Amino acid sequence: MRQWLHAAVQEARSGLSEGGIPIGAALIDADGAILGSGHNRRVQDGDPSLHAETAAFRAAGRRRSYRDTTMVTTLSPCWYCSGLVRQFGISRVVIGEARTFSGGHEWLAEHGFDIVLLDDEECVEMMEQFIAANPALWMEDIGDDDEL
Amino acid sequence: MRQWLHAAVQEARSGLSEGGIPIGAALIDADGAILGSGHNRRVQDGDPSLHAETAAFRAAGRRRSYRDTTMVTTLSPCWYCSGLVRQFGISRVVIGEARTFSGGHEWLAEHGFDIVLLDDEECVEMMEQFIAANPALWMEDIGDDDEL
Repeated sequence: MRQWLHAAVQEARSGLSEGGIPIGAALIDADGAILGSGHNRRVQDGDPSLHAETAAFRAAGRRRSYRDTTMVTTLSPCWYCSGLVRQFGISRVVIGEARTFSGGHEWLAEHGFDIVLLDDEECVEMMEQFIAANPALWMEDIGDDDEL
Repeated sequence: MRQWLHAAVQEARSGLSEGGIPIGAALIDADGAILGSGHNRRVQDGDPSLHAETAAFRAAGRRRSYRDTTMVTTLSPCWYCSGLVRQFGISRVVIGEARTFSGGHEWLAEHGFDIVLLDDEECVEMMEQFIAANPALWMEDIGDDDEL
């Protein structure tokens, strides 16, 4: 699972190097092969619909079933991305960290999805630094408008 | 609201004419103006991430807040699209019908979102005809792999 997380971290770092929000994800099949990977593209493409998980899902292309697939992501999936997992029956979610943001992973666990929280220090540091430097952009990405 | 639904139905019919899945949506601002609209693009683009609601959200572009916006959609939003609504705080969802498919709109209502279910005959007929003619494609779009 650490190897899969590494692929997601590489995606996050690619996003950061493009000036974007450093969250990465990959969709993995039952044999451990990467079906698709991606990173948040809000800044790069001006596209709010491409969170890391939806970008990885998109990159994997059309599939008839997501049974026994795993979504690995550097950060706890927001409600949007948790809904994606639930709707398409992605069996497992491997999460880098849920300290800087906690989305719907507990809700997924309650509904029978296999959730693995790695609490990875590298992921925590990457997001802590990004959020501290870009608070407004981060709040935009998670739809938090409380301070407006 | 019927006028907004009409815009969503037009999107759905555009999708159908392209050979796609006939579900349409639009994101409406507090003054009733359309911020963005779209339709399911699974077939046309080979892109499973573009449901009608996520296509409309994408078309609306980056926004700092979704307060007082309305998502109008021809069909009850699936978990993926319901998660989108919850994460970004889209205040209201106007739904053409929930007879042919029922997603997360009751969950959204429980969490304080304003849900308006129009139970529109035109929307029901459009989906009934589509699902009857394309059952495998429809199951793929909602991640239903029970029959595989």
